[in-house]
Amino acid sequence: MTTKIKAGIIGATGYAGTELVRILSTHPYVEIVSVSSVSFGGRDISEIYPGFRAGMRMILDENPEQMIARCDVIFASLPHGLSQEIAGKAIAAGVCFIDLGADFRLEDESEYKEWYGCDFLDAELQSSAVYGLCEITRKEIAGTKLIANPGCYPTSVALGLYPALKNGLISTEGIIVDSKSGVSGAGRGLSQNTHFPDCNEAFAAYKAGSHRHRPEIEQTLSKLAGEKLVVTFTPHLLPVNRGILSTIYCQRKSSFAEFRRSYEEAYADEPFVVVLADGEYANIKNVRMTNCCQISLHEDEHTNTFIICSAIDNMVKGAAGQAIQNMNLLFGFEETVGLPLIAPAI
Amino acid sequence: MTTKIKAGIIGATGYAGTELVRILSTHPYVEIVSVSSVSFGGRDISEIYPGFRAGMRMILDENPEQMIARCDVIFASLPHGLSQEIAGKAIAAGVCFIDLGADFRLEDESEYKEWYGCDFLDAELQSSAVYGLCEITRKEIAGTKLIANPGCYPTSVALGLYPALKNGLISTEGIIVDSKSGVSGAGRGLSQNTHFPDCNEAFAAYKAGSHRHRPEIEQTLSKLAGEKLVVTFTPHLLPVNRGILSTIYCQRKSSFAEFRRSYEEAYADEPFVVVLADGEYANIKNVRMTNCCQISLHEDEHTNTFIICSAIDNMVKGAAGQAIQNMNLLFGFEETVGLPLIAPAI
Amino acid sequence: MTTKIKAGIIGATGYAGTELVRILSTHPYVEIVSVSSVSFGGRDISEIYPGFRAGMRMILDENPEQMIARCDVIFASLPHGLSQEIAGKAIAAGVCFIDLGADFRLEDESEYKEWYGCDFLDAELQSSAVYGLCEITRKEIAGTKLIANPGCYPTSVALGLYPALKNGLISTEGIIVDSKSGVSGAGRGLSQNTHFPDCNEAFAAYKAGSHRHRPEIEQTLSKLAGEKLVVTFTPHLLPVNRGILSTIYCQRKSSFAEFRRSYEEAYADEPFVVVLADGEYANIKNVRMTNCCQISLHEDEHTNTFIICSAIDNMVKGAAGQAIQNMNLLFGFEETVGLPLIAPAI
Amino acid sequence: MTTKIKAGIIGATGYAGTELVRILSTHPYVEIVSVSSVSFGGRDISEIYPGFRAGMRMILDENPEQMIARCDVIFASLPHGLSQEIAGKAIAAGVCFIDLGADFRLEDESEYKEWYGCDFLDAELQSSAVYGLCEITRKEIAGTKLIANPGCYPTSVALGLYPALKNGLISTEGIIVDSKSGVSGAGRGLSQNTHFPDCNEAFAAYKAGSHRHRPEIEQTLSKLAGEKLVVTFTPHLLPVNRGILSTIYCQRKSSFAEFRRSYEEAYADEPFVVVLADGEYANIKNVRMTNCCQISLHEDEHTNTFIICSAIDNMVKGAAGQAIQNMNLLFGFEETVGLPLIAPAI
Repeated sequence: MTTKIKAGIIGATGYAGTELVRILSTHPYVEIVSVSSVSFGGRDISEIYPGFRAGMRMILDENPEQMIARCDVIFASLPHGLSQEIAGKAIAAGVCFIDLGADFRLEDESEYKEWYGCDFLDAELQSSAVYGLCEITRKEIAGTKLIANPGCYPTSVALGLYPALKNGLISTEGIIVDSKSGVSGAGRGLSQNTHFPDCNEAFAAYKAGSHRHRPEIEQTLSKLAGEKLVVTFTPHLLPVNRGILSTIYCQRKSSFAEFRRSYEEAYADEPFVVVLADGEYANIKNVRMTNCCQISLHEDEHTNTFIICSAIDNMVKGAAGQAIQNMNLLFGFEETVGLPLIAPAI
Repeated sequence: MTTKIKAGIIGATGYAGTELVRILSTHPYVEIVSVSSVSFGGRDISEIYPGFRAGMRMILDENPEQMIARCDVIFASLPHGLSQEIAGKAIAAGVCFIDLGADFRLEDESEYKEWYGCDFLDAELQSSAVYGLCEITRKEIAGTKLIANPGCYPTSVALGLYPALKNGLISTEGIIVDSKSGVSGAGRGLSQNTHFPDCNEAFAAYKAGSHRHRPEIEQTLSKLAGEKLVVTFTPHLLPVNRGILSTIYCQRKSSFAEFRRSYEEAYADEPFVVVLADGEYANIKNVRMTNCCQISLHEDEHTNTFIICSAIDNMVKGAAGQAIQNMNLLFGFEETVGLPLIAPAI
Repeated sequence: MTTKIKAGIIGATGYAGTELVRILSTHPYVEIVSVSSVSFGGRDISEIYPGFRAGMRMILDENPEQMIARCDVIFASLPHGLSQEIAGKAIAAGVCFIDLGADFRLEDESEYKEWYGCDFLDAELQSSAVYGLCEITRKEIAGTKLIANPGCYPTSVALGLYPALKNGLISTEGIIVDSKSGVSGAGRGLSQNTHFPDCNEAFAAYKAGSHRHRPEIEQTLSKLAGEKLVVTFTPHLLPVNRGILSTIYCQRKSSFAEFRRSYEEAYADEPFVVVLADGEYANIKNVRMTNCCQISLHEDEHTNTFIICSAIDNMVKGAAGQAIQNMNLLFGFEETVGLPLIAPAI
Repeated sequence: MTTKIKAGIIGATGYAGTELVRILSTHPYVEIVSVSSVSFGGRDISEIYPGFRAGMRMILDENPEQMIARCDVIFASLPHGLSQEIAGKAIAAGVCFIDLGADFRLEDESEYKEWYGCDFLDAELQSSAVYGLCEITRKEIAGTKLIANPGCYPTSVALGLYPALKNGLISTEGIIVDSKSGVSGAGRGLSQNTHFPDCNEAFAAYKAGSHRHRPEIEQTLSKLAGEKLVVTFTPHLLPVNRGILSTIYCQRKSSFAEFRRSYEEAYADEPFVVVLADGEYANIKNVRMTNCCQISLHEDEHTNTFIICSAIDNMVKGAAGQAIQNMNLLFGFEETVGLPLIAPAI
């Protein structure tokens, strides 16, 4: 590989944006040529994040549109509703666009409108987008230019249920998803419940049954199951910086051995998915700072329930890392290149 | 009240034991006359816990049996299997005995044997024990001398489901309990997964479907429902010091309004139980250092599911506080006396 | 004691205000008759703090002045500059006033102006205020009506140096104070550096040499030493909710034995101050939720330095607890009544 | 670079060992050929650390000596006293040896004996060791085979004082070092004070004036100053996983401008050292997971004191990262290769 592709990052000073910058900065085939920020345009990114001082100094551009002429790929980490227009321009100009927001995730416009309050600006553009959950939609990714990078909770849930649903080993009714997310998932914006003294030593659910990731989860699971299914989804705010653990309950339709085998087979060749052994439990600690998902499988015989624990780092596999994995697929790079595989022990 | 009752605390240097000492030390009707510890016998408790230095200095006795002649009530916080013998002696001598361990919680000896590996030493003594979940079994408590103080998880779950089950507003099938406990629940003993660098910024389930509190939960819920029921129970280790949040999923058999009303009625006069308003979420932060349980109620209409969040402080309502509430009932004191009701804001 | 005194709390929804409410709510000689808040006037305090739901429901008044006619004592926890006027009115009406802010702490108006940008409204009122660091100024407190409740850092430092300075056992030159405070010290207001993901797993100094508590520290220490002295003071933000540890370095002018003896003698009868034994270290954990100060003494022979570690709970001894201790002294109550002495083990 | 050097890691399952494995696993010029562990010999390292599962599977050897025949460089992370023998054998066989323990750090055998209780096994070997604080001793490193990798505290202190001492801008008397370390610094072994509930929300000093890193600090600083100097050194245990902040107090002998200039010049070309601007404070968060040291400079004019804050990640620049930086120098690689420069924002 002699020449590097040129990448731009819109929304580079949000948490997901900073992760994109950080990870891409050591990617052997990528050169970051532009970073943008509405809040901090004109300043150096390392001024906002002193932790970047030694390795990344670049002036933030207020205007992201200049990236189109300069980049081979644009990553956007924007509030919903703000990606559609620039994505359209990028695609029209032949530039790959990877959207870390929600604008291209839902296929059904009425659902998008219901949950996000926005319309599809361009139905054709929308239908050209590929939902980039790499382990599940890998084949479609290579042939596209526009990627909807999955939400953090949906990534943990879809990877946690993929083999079981695809193989019909669980009931499609009564699936319960109890998810817990580190506070970075709430973003960089200030709020009372993420103020340190309020958040530390605290724990609660929020938006039970009404989180925007629910329709995204259901869309993915329904495709896997080949039928429309619904789930009960309750997110919780976990007083740690990073990580999502989803504990998923479903009624079994197979033996546990068959169930386990389906996971081991589905993920045997997946570099980023680890199926843990009997007696082990997926822990957010063991995927921190990596693009991995760790899954543990449990059986409650006396209630005929399978319990699946699925852990990811919400900032990496749940955001920036998966976006880069998608980029690797788009450009035909080795899928793991530039992405961390080993979690620090501490 | 002119004379104080005399209390002894067996196992006073475990976490639950220290909470008993701390809270009882300011109880207006109680004098602590003896504290015992196998590990630290002969030393002052404030030597082990320097935080007690200003308010509680008392030599730990290695032998708890001396308490029987000196106390009106004995609290025992011991590993399972170790309370039965001394409880028998205390009761025989007319001394009230409140066991914070598991020895008197399960009514079925075979279950006790299955989960704890011990036999009932004295079936009559066992059958005389009252399961002291005060809000539910209050009437039985006043007339007894031997209290089985409930486990921490079972307390959060039973209070969370009591009104719904008693009134038949939910299905008795398919109840899922996803619980998260602070690390003090694992006790003072050292282990790798409670070593700070391993535990901090970590989160995982453990003993899914196989935790010893499951039969205790089922025993209580079955009584409330008037039929044998089973639950799926998954505990998780939460990187905070104190608190349990149980998120409980059940299929509805009533309107949400009726469901909510049942909670408001059941707990209207309960000083320690707070039913939160619509849109509020139970948070362990809001019950820290108190004997309260806060419950929030949620409905997921699209899956016909009621979601109940039940929060307690595992060390207080889940252990020492409830034991003292039981004592208050046993001795005819006002139920709230000596027990904290307000959680610190930070 | 048959009748209770009536207390009002201005600024009851700030962190220090909530601590006042919480601790006073169980004080046997006090009835809280009014709580005020500019931000939340008209709402119930337990609506803002759901942790108060079970034990304290009271409508917040937007206007604090009504308290003067109804209260025996008023506590004010306000931003600097806002206490002087209402204090004057309260005192004029014969109501005791305990100010948790900075308005009456500095005796020198020019220092007050330099550090806080405000003038003295009423010099006579100012000079009538007593700096309420109870262990040091106890005698003056009983005879006054207006208390300047000390700052959190100054409390930890003054108690840590009092015996040594009073007895001339250390040099008055070159005193270094390296303090670390839990995040509640920064208050309830939001800021990026107290946003959980930014604050958690972080640690830094701030305002080195330029914190407003420096002149307050120097004022107190100078009085103790009987000469004007200056200190180097560096505060740090510690990622915990509560607690201040000040590590104080000074050049010795006595033997360590004499130095230790001075502390043991000075604090022998102080219920809230604990001098730890050789080899023990003051830990914020051991004073959490209490009105205590724990002090450990260390000697570095090879540099002729004494090292003093002084730990308090910034919200209790450093704010609300000391204010109540002052109230106890003002009204002739037992000094410890209503104040917690034992720290929870966890 | 066509062929990779072969590396072995002794003590690969301690915290520093795991960091070596993790960072070296992506080093472009290194192949890890052997990892050893006394505790876990015969097991796969990813069995002990499930976070390694996706990227590093290798059987731990109980016997480290086999590495000598197979490796170009051996890293040892062992308790003191255990490195000397194997280091001698490695060096004799022409294998580079980088010791992360204390066996080769102190030049004076009597000091080594006083602080560690061991003798020098081989005085010649000892004198051939180079203290590998790369920014300070870079020139000596290239020509050696045996590196004493500096301790974590000494690294933060030496980098923090290097320019000032070298240029004589501060007094060599009365230097105070107040350091705070994350809990990983205490290692993987269990102890009560690193048990999560005891350590979380706690903070205290330990070994004031008597920590083993003091003589190492003094040895380095004395060389820089060109005269024997002593320091007062107090470490504290900080309830975070990673990071050391040293707050250093010294009496000025220059203007602040000259002082600042000395740092900017000394570190202008250092890739891993960042001198922050006026008003910024070194924060452990901004060096986490990197091999960087961030230094902030402060002046307290009214006491003629310079205050230096120096932050490193104790596991990276304070251990494994600096060891790899040393390796890069030894083998003539670019000094930054394989080492992280950007701290995650969260």
